[in-house]
Amino acid sequence: MDMNTDLFLDNMRRHIRLTEEEEAVVLSKLRPVKLKRREHLLKQGQVARDLAFVIEGCLRAYALDDNGFEHILQFAPAGWWISDMSSVISRRDSLLNVDAIKPSEVLLLSREDQLSLFDDVPKLERYFRVLTENGLVSSRMRLIENLSLTARQRYQRFCQTYPNLINEIPQKYIASFIGVTPEFLSKIRSER
Amino acid sequence: MDMNTDLFLDNMRRHIRLTEEEEAVVLSKLRPVKLKRREHLLKQGQVARDLAFVIEGCLRAYALDDNGFEHILQFAPAGWWISDMSSVISRRDSLLNVDAIKPSEVLLLSREDQLSLFDDVPKLERYFRVLTENGLVSSRMRLIENLSLTARQRYQRFCQTYPNLINEIPQKYIASFIGVTPEFLSKIRSER
Repeated sequence: MDMNTDLFLDNMRRHIRLTEEEEAVVLSKLRPVKLKRREHLLKQGQVARDLAFVIEGCLRAYALDDNGFEHILQFAPAGWWISDMSSVISRRDSLLNVDAIKPSEVLLLSREDQLSLFDDVPKLERYFRVLTENGLVSSRMRLIENLSLTARQRYQRFCQTYPNLINEIPQKYIASFIGVTPEFLSKIRSER
Repeated sequence: MDMNTDLFLDNMRRHIRLTEEEEAVVLSKLRPVKLKRREHLLKQGQVARDLAFVIEGCLRAYALDDNGFEHILQFAPAGWWISDMSSVISRRDSLLNVDAIKPSEVLLLSREDQLSLFDDVPKLERYFRVLTENGLVSSRMRLIENLSLTARQRYQRFCQTYPNLINEIPQKYIASFIGVTPEFLSKIRSER
């Protein structure tokens, strides 16, 4: 399978500058995978072994509550990383599910390969240090927003965070991310 | 003020190996500060500018709820880092308070100095990438433990995480960390 790696290289070059040889070493560890709509990359109870960089489509991470309701924690459109980082790092069972909400293509990097790349291409440490920092901030922000913002404010934050997704994915997913019913989301949108 | 930097150097050497010159550059950015009991390093509403490495005593990070109750999120005995990392990274107002629960001594590293050290001593990226990863895992674990473990199990986790603190700090702090009253903690402890 041919790899479309431009988006990944653009993303990495925003943080670090590698030589062509170093970039080739990094690319050699990425495994392209195509996902059908609703196909899972990770199910809760598994240990997450891969980080996924989205080059086409859109994935989401969600938790299932005891009543079987889905709570969407993150979307990952093209250009975003997604996984259960906490499971990847700690090697504990994942509490999240990750699936594709439309036909998608991702580049997978295993934790094992990531750690060996840190030895082979030390400049990569910065790229993933920054990604990990951003993950820490957004997991904290998400928790606080759910506690302190109204549904309308959470909808506005969704639009800021994912400006291109609003007309791209089913409204029920956006409602689940914001934590309202699809009917209430429709009411919020009609007010704007 | 003389700096006791052995504990910090030991901690760093567990992850990376620097030359003597590089270690000297890092140490030159650390600012030793002594704290009295109950003295604050950070108050909510401020932007956290410093990371703190504890070399003596014990600090804690806590949130205040609307009723003025303290909820302790983390203890930092000697050898631990503490701050509101999310505020440090995002430059948003801190939602946490950090104070000393006994007379303490810390080494402060400003975010600005940390970022310039990454340019001067690139090997430091790994040290802080690992610390950030651990922070991400423990913030996730803390959230899940609060939802899914019983008070007795949370007490056992406290004893595993902080084996030396159990007889070192006032029981009311441990009760706040576990999320029970001091009376209930005393009951749990008497059962063992």
